[in-house]
Amino acid sequence: MSQQPGRTGEPNKAGEFGLIAWIRQHAEPQAQRSSHVVFGIGDDCAGLRFTPGREVLVTTDMLMDGRHFLTSQHTPEQIGRKAMAVNISDIAAMAGVPVAAVVAVALPKNLGKMSASELAHGLERGLESVAGQYGVALVGGDTNAWNGPLVINVTVLGETTDRGPVRRSGARAGDWIFVTGPLGGSLESGRHLEPRPRVPEALALHECVPLRAMIDISDGLAGDLGHILEESGHLGAVLEAAWIPIHEDALMIARSSGRNPLDHALHDGEDFELCFTVTPEDGARLIAQPPAGLELFQVGVITAEPGLRIRTEDGRIAPLEARGFDHLRAAGAGADS
Amino acid sequence: MSQQPGRTGEPNKAGEFGLIAWIRQHAEPQAQRSSHVVFGIGDDCAGLRFTPGREVLVTTDMLMDGRHFLTSQHTPEQIGRKAMAVNISDIAAMAGVPVAAVVAVALPKNLGKMSASELAHGLERGLESVAGQYGVALVGGDTNAWNGPLVINVTVLGETTDRGPVRRSGARAGDWIFVTGPLGGSLESGRHLEPRPRVPEALALHECVPLRAMIDISDGLAGDLGHILEESGHLGAVLEAAWIPIHEDALMIARSSGRNPLDHALHDGEDFELCFTVTPEDGARLIAQPPAGLELFQVGVITAEPGLRIRTEDGRIAPLEARGFDHLRAAGAGADS
Repeated sequence: MSQQPGRTGEPNKAGEFGLIAWIRQHAEPQAQRSSHVVFGIGDDCAGLRFTPGREVLVTTDMLMDGRHFLTSQHTPEQIGRKAMAVNISDIAAMAGVPVAAVVAVALPKNLGKMSASELAHGLERGLESVAGQYGVALVGGDTNAWNGPLVINVTVLGETTDRGPVRRSGARAGDWIFVTGPLGGSLESGRHLEPRPRVPEALALHECVPLRAMIDISDGLAGDLGHILEESGHLGAVLEAAWIPIHEDALMIARSSGRNPLDHALHDGEDFELCFTVTPEDGARLIAQPPAGLELFQVGVITAEPGLRIRTEDGRIAPLEARGFDHLRAAGAGADS
Repeated sequence: MSQQPGRTGEPNKAGEFGLIAWIRQHAEPQAQRSSHVVFGIGDDCAGLRFTPGREVLVTTDMLMDGRHFLTSQHTPEQIGRKAMAVNISDIAAMAGVPVAAVVAVALPKNLGKMSASELAHGLERGLESVAGQYGVALVGGDTNAWNGPLVINVTVLGETTDRGPVRRSGARAGDWIFVTGPLGGSLESGRHLEPRPRVPEALALHECVPLRAMIDISDGLAGDLGHILEESGHLGAVLEAAWIPIHEDALMIARSSGRNPLDHALHDGEDFELCFTVTPEDGARLIAQPPAGLELFQVGVITAEPGLRIRTEDGRIAPLEARGFDHLRAAGAGADS
């Protein structure tokens, strides 16, 4: 039922603001320049060609109004950019190369003062700007209108490099744990709306040393490192409080949040920095000679003893809860309680 | 942000009914049996392997409560089956082989008497039953909870056979137009909830003769044939009213709908039969010797003269409007007006 304007029982109405028709007109010239695209919008499926011998990566994310963005506060372009970026970030997390995307949207019929075509075209501009930046071809989609809130679902396909994928499950006791940038305060500051997927960073790192395990930080360092520990066979980790890079947004937010900056850095979501582990030898090499333009921060070590712990600045080691965090509620949205 | 339980800022809550965790437990054993799956749920992306030299097909569809199904009337299993089937049908429409699927859902927090886990597990059973039937591995997804209605988005990946894809754009003047089964009344009868993607039919046909253009009938024969005409370069067609196979559901519905059965057959959506064109020589061959088990119906011919027309039983040729049809409104739902 996809890949064409108005395939939803309401062709004429959908046609008026046909996101997909518009994508076809605006994004197809670019998509057709991609050597991966055999055919894009205008068929029941898109047809893609991947590099022989590479694995195809696929990831999907649904973003909903009141939960991952707020149509009352954020522009359609911002929402489109975020929807594309969070998916590309998942490709980065495996040290893959993003290739193509398909998009499905549920557009609210009641848009207040914004017209349906303004919303659709704004979303498209946002989707396209991030896609274009990362060489991702927008090859198809599905537009629907309904009485519910805005929902946007993006699926990104990518491929591994000849170094293969970096999975969550490859960490081993003794590995050093790194992050690619300062953490915390992304949601409160609005930085989460402009995520910059760390694709070049992941590829440069993977080219430089064998990465053992990697994840992008979307639920907070503690939570996402927890996934690496779990997938790698119930390992543990000791984080060093003094080593964790704290984003200036976290410092600012902490003045009024009642939480300390470290807590923001550990638990805030949607930083989209990479967290990865390497052998101590490779870790030392990365510190001595990081890939050009990359800022790397060792934040701890993997342990055979299960459980996530943190060494505070006074030298004590305490368990660290991988607690979740309600993104938009944290940002004061309160729209999803 | 995908491929794991609870990656939505509310890990514990999502974990309670974690659809993805449940899929992992239930579907992964099957997914791991697929030779296409390198790794499935538990990473930021799924990793897939496709047959060298084949094109990768991708299609995505978003289904929303009140629009494509009604949680008040349809079971979670039915909704899950439909969400998977409509996507597999898009792969069938290109004579492709479906391979893998990723799923994203927005689960309503307010479910009435159904628990969130009942809904999630029902959806999963539905998704999995259709996926399993067509050899599709469920390799990942994204579960979210919100205050809005149920939304489910499925993306299916497939690959072409060595005969290549059948596109919409390949029809030529003189081609004979066929459908694979009787049409009409799918929505009103509830048949749309149990779509049977015509994958084996498409593959058998494509093996038998070169198919020039094909589409699955989701918006009605007139509308979907219209897409073939448009994509093939503003061609036209003459349908033969007497030849169009009318589903018994259309006959039944017509008794009370105020529309005649032919009108249902031409314009009702979600039949999921295939509509395809072949040369007259191949058409004659298909009629003389259809692939085993297939019922084929010639419904008309492609013309160089643009526009969709129909020859009525009295011999007159009249223009046929490719008008859309509001699916659930037609079914008396009225939930999306």
